Amino acid sequence: MRIRDYGIHPGQMPTGPLNAISDVKGVTVGHCTVVSDRHNTGVTVVMPCEENPFTHKLPCAAFVLNGFGKTAGLVQIDELGTLETPIALTNTLNVGLVHDAMVGYMIDRCRTEGVALRSVNPVVCECNDASLNDIQHRAVREKHVLEAIRNASAVFEEGAVGCGRGTTCHGLKGGVGTASRVVRMPERDYTVGLLVQTNHGRFEDLLIQGRHPDAESPGRTGAPDQGSCIAILATDAPLSDRQLKRVVKRISVGLARLGSFIGHGSGEVFIGFSTYRPEAVSESLVRSLQMREERLDPFFRAAAECAEEAVLNSMIAAEDVTGSDGTARRSLRHLLRPIETD
Amino acid sequence: MRIRDYGIHPGQMPTGPLNAISDVKGVTVGHCTVVSDRHNTGVTVVMPCEENPFTHKLPCAAFVLNGFGKTAGLVQIDELGTLETPIALTNTLNVGLVHDAMVGYMIDRCRTEGVALRSVNPVVCECNDASLNDIQHRAVREKHVLEAIRNASAVFEEGAVGCGRGTTCHGLKGGVGTASRVVRMPERDYTVGLLVQTNHGRFEDLLIQGRHPDAESPGRTGAPDQGSCIAILATDAPLSDRQLKRVVKRISVGLARLGSFIGHGSGEVFIGFSTYRPEAVSESLVRSLQMREERLDPFFRAAAECAEEAVLNSMIAAEDVTGSDGTARRSLRHLLRPIETD
Amino acid sequence: MRIRDYGIHPGQMPTGPLNAISDVKGVTVGHCTVVSDRHNTGVTVVMPCEENPFTHKLPCAAFVLNGFGKTAGLVQIDELGTLETPIALTNTLNVGLVHDAMVGYMIDRCRTEGVALRSVNPVVCECNDASLNDIQHRAVREKHVLEAIRNASAVFEEGAVGCGRGTTCHGLKGGVGTASRVVRMPERDYTVGLLVQTNHGRFEDLLIQGRHPDAESPGRTGAPDQGSCIAILATDAPLSDRQLKRVVKRISVGLARLGSFIGHGSGEVFIGFSTYRPEAVSESLVRSLQMREERLDPFFRAAAECAEEAVLNSMIAAEDVTGSDGTARRSLRHLLRPIETD
Amino acid sequence: MRIRDYGIHPGQMPTGPLNAISDVKGVTVGHCTVVSDRHNTGVTVVMPCEENPFTHKLPCAAFVLNGFGKTAGLVQIDELGTLETPIALTNTLNVGLVHDAMVGYMIDRCRTEGVALRSVNPVVCECNDASLNDIQHRAVREKHVLEAIRNASAVFEEGAVGCGRGTTCHGLKGGVGTASRVVRMPERDYTVGLLVQTNHGRFEDLLIQGRHPDAESPGRTGAPDQGSCIAILATDAPLSDRQLKRVVKRISVGLARLGSFIGHGSGEVFIGFSTYRPEAVSESLVRSLQMREERLDPFFRAAAECAEEAVLNSMIAAEDVTGSDGTARRSLRHLLRPIETD
Repeated sequence: MRIRDYGIHPGQMPTGPLNAISDVKGVTVGHCTVVSDRHNTGVTVVMPCEENPFTHKLPCAAFVLNGFGKTAGLVQIDELGTLETPIALTNTLNVGLVHDAMVGYMIDRCRTEGVALRSVNPVVCECNDASLNDIQHRAVREKHVLEAIRNASAVFEEGAVGCGRGTTCHGLKGGVGTASRVVRMPERDYTVGLLVQTNHGRFEDLLIQGRHPDAESPGRTGAPDQGSCIAILATDAPLSDRQLKRVVKRISVGLARLGSFIGHGSGEVFIGFSTYRPEAVSESLVRSLQMREERLDPFFRAAAECAEEAVLNSMIAAEDVTGSDGTARRSLRHLLRPIETD
Repeated sequence: MRIRDYGIHPGQMPTGPLNAISDVKGVTVGHCTVVSDRHNTGVTVVMPCEENPFTHKLPCAAFVLNGFGKTAGLVQIDELGTLETPIALTNTLNVGLVHDAMVGYMIDRCRTEGVALRSVNPVVCECNDASLNDIQHRAVREKHVLEAIRNASAVFEEGAVGCGRGTTCHGLKGGVGTASRVVRMPERDYTVGLLVQTNHGRFEDLLIQGRHPDAESPGRTGAPDQGSCIAILATDAPLSDRQLKRVVKRISVGLARLGSFIGHGSGEVFIGFSTYRPEAVSESLVRSLQMREERLDPFFRAAAECAEEAVLNSMIAAEDVTGSDGTARRSLRHLLRPIETD
Repeated sequence: MRIRDYGIHPGQMPTGPLNAISDVKGVTVGHCTVVSDRHNTGVTVVMPCEENPFTHKLPCAAFVLNGFGKTAGLVQIDELGTLETPIALTNTLNVGLVHDAMVGYMIDRCRTEGVALRSVNPVVCECNDASLNDIQHRAVREKHVLEAIRNASAVFEEGAVGCGRGTTCHGLKGGVGTASRVVRMPERDYTVGLLVQTNHGRFEDLLIQGRHPDAESPGRTGAPDQGSCIAILATDAPLSDRQLKRVVKRISVGLARLGSFIGHGSGEVFIGFSTYRPEAVSESLVRSLQMREERLDPFFRAAAECAEEAVLNSMIAAEDVTGSDGTARRSLRHLLRPIETD
Repeated sequence: MRIRDYGIHPGQMPTGPLNAISDVKGVTVGHCTVVSDRHNTGVTVVMPCEENPFTHKLPCAAFVLNGFGKTAGLVQIDELGTLETPIALTNTLNVGLVHDAMVGYMIDRCRTEGVALRSVNPVVCECNDASLNDIQHRAVREKHVLEAIRNASAVFEEGAVGCGRGTTCHGLKGGVGTASRVVRMPERDYTVGLLVQTNHGRFEDLLIQGRHPDAESPGRTGAPDQGSCIAILATDAPLSDRQLKRVVKRISVGLARLGSFIGHGSGEVFIGFSTYRPEAVSESLVRSLQMREERLDPFFRAAAECAEEAVLNSMIAAEDVTGSDGTARRSLRHLLRPIETD
């Protein structure tokens, strides 16, 4: 069940066939969920292309809306405007181990392909799932990262899985969500896809199409907004890194429409990449296409719409989860009613 | 009439007595409106304090959400974190003349006070009012700037006045709007006030509390979002420049809730200042108070709420305006119904 | 006479034929110098291409090393990565009037060419020449800007002319300087050119090839470093805005080698543009070449070498200038001995 | 032996008693060097204060001059302006494991002290020592990090130790270097200290006081500048995060004077912190001193001087090191002659 099954259709643009980040050709997503007495956590990996991204670097940009977070890898993205590894998402205190696992994965992959690798820049994002996870134990290990990579597929689960297993969104159960939009241009259609790890917002502030779904008001935590919201955007349109930065900035629009005011404690980090790659034409030159700047509005709108829908998908897909200390996060499902279909 | 007279109360926080930026003690606003056969334009000045800001510099920060704009003065604000002049808002092509007028004003004021002035950094923001104004003629002259300064008062008009005379917001008449919120802290209350110059958004996208006020759909322009939204935030809380930057970033939340997705053509520039000033304690040191970082959430919320309300105030206060070529911008008033009071 | 006539050859790379920014095809420079009883000031204009830059926008980036300055126009360059007007350089308090004159010039030029212009982003840089100029009087008027534009040529003067008439560099007479370097690539050569307006540094700190030219130590001012150094870089290499930002950052290397430590009071603003323009291929797409990232080192080196040489050229070309209050700035010529040629 | 023993005294300011970053009271440095058949690498830790930095957060800022690097932890520093852990420096591919070890160290330290820790932001910087180290093996493990922390002392080694064991600087052996300067102010003296991990520059470009020490020209590698230069600056002066950012930007001046032009492949990351901490005065307010902005010049100069001297110290203190594949890096000692003392 996704948010559209509840009659909620954020925005106006058409979706891709899967309404998922994987509508962008070549992009796949894999989860490994770590659940035990002590843990509700995991790792999710966004594979940006079929090729080795180290040898097929992709235009990329990041925008940090609120930097109370530990995302690693942004220094090089800002400088070089490229992505050279998959993107991993996990819990806050696991950034180091997952970073190391990504280094290991890239070394192995490059060795297999006969590629020299002296240095590599893994991108690891995070949310703090300590409400439902014994986070200090750093349960996500190399094997989980490799399993998430092996699991990567165009079809993947949303909700309380992978990096979203232990997260909380607007006082309810958060998780992983996705959505996509199709941008129609005269010469062809392009796709924008988004994946979010949702761990932000207060229950009282939640707005769905301008209204609070308050019914019986479960999860009224009064807790500060201490989480984060990570968003990964992909597109097959030929956007430069600067243009991608402009596009991912609009992800905040979707968060705001759902009632977030981007709290102090919330690390809002948005990363965007294009699967369009410039072509080498000589030893020193590459040739590339690029969207005209004045044609970007539909991409901005797509980012905003995808964000709104992906956050709602992350919540509606998530089941109730209870931590070992009894902390419970209920699903948004209890507050909405699916549309009748018969 | 303000948006609350129509039963619309964005957010949850209490307002200041005027529900205006001038609820922050010492802040005043003055307009000079320039209307003629060819012109619907003007200038608005935010006076940040009663003292000469050149000798009483204020903590200040700016955030550029979308930089398709010509605002002058941000380079120095970014470096030094201070404001040393009033802030002027006008039409796009008048930035140079208004900048020069502000230099002249500061020279005269400093001369009168016996202050040496070798260099000064005026802050001039702008929106493009070319739909209703013959903008190439640069109608705003020094005398208008000086008149706006003379007019500065804690009580000031909203709507189609000053820099808002010729602007268009969500396909309807835009203008100048303001709002304020009170942040209650244990030791005392603080005030956050905001002023906007609204010239952004498409009619079809407008959302008021989650719904489109479409009635008879005037102003359905289909035009791209080519304007801008300038916002000036003031507070009496002791916030550092870095903290002010964090606060003004949340102004975007208010815009997003009203349906903007921050279009390509829209220069969204947000500037915040604090009227709290560090105190000199020696030749080389100053002493200051500062809010604890983890107490900033109510300021973030206040910025978002003020932005939403100030934009609506700018629209509801604006009367219909027609340009010399017959282009008309109707007021939001035609779409909403005031609450009955008797 | 230029610094090479004194046996000083900063760096290792070959220069272009003029050793000037105008070695980049299409780039020209014009001055208008304003000298009177009260004034030693002026304006210099860098014309980036023969075509109208508004209709032939150029890739562009800026880097602010120290932002105690009033440069206007950077907000839009940061967002859109393009230059759409000539770049004007003048004295600090004249930024507004010169900005307005550039608006007027662009309106007229576009009208003549039948181009609609609703909005335009002039770039105006500045140094504070108040030691030699009655700066509050804002002597640079529209006619001077237009004259500088008319004077634009590939061959232009250095030293105490145009925007450099009243500046002070390392306690000696500063001014306008230029230099260029040729980057040899397998498929062709590229040119990097630079122009500086020098108004920074202390005399005691000046180093020329690692040594202080102290002789009789004139100009030992003990004055703080209150000026600025503006640098404009041009290249015909196909560099993106992000790459241009990387290149102009290296301008600081040249300043550091001459002994500057980038003082608090010095506004160091560097702007770079490429005369290579992407080509439109459809309604929504452009096609462009771009240097491979790993080929940028010679451009970095060229920026550093040009900066070092251009600053020295600005000083050695400058004659002694005395202000109306008797303040004198002596030329570097008095401290160096030209090489014998016979 | 340090560079002053060779008669080279960069700059003019007085040094602290140790001429080291540890002249800033409370700052200590520890190394753990990892040498084996395959490895020349290690880890160095800068302890910013005696107290737990998580509970005694320090004002902090970072500036990325060239971001071809993998430093972790900067997102939060940029947002919150504070440092809450020691700073670790290691080899590029070990960032993840060292990050995890720092998380473990902070968990243990906080547990011991009864401090709740849900989230923590380790700062891990790196250089690529692959010329002398089998970097893919990631030899630096948790035990090495903990040993470096245990070794932390005000007196510590320079040269080919810790994170500097395998680095290359200007074609010669690089390493760890340090220096300090005393800033004399009317009311008291302040100290600026710096530590560098040097792995940048080409041999041909090296300049010592404006001259190349070329003698017999060993190490003429012709290799591109593929390393990095990390610099950590400490001061006891009450500088805000914004002011610290301004100060660390001047570190580049020292690198430029030694001949670097900040190559493409070199990740130049500078981090600065102050040991002065604001004092809590109420539930929501802190009180702090701060340097007046116009008093910062001596701090800028100190950063530049320290950088120049610390890099030279890192090189002169380093012994020759040969990697397992026979790659040798000779010491600068072979090119300079110490001054006679008897």
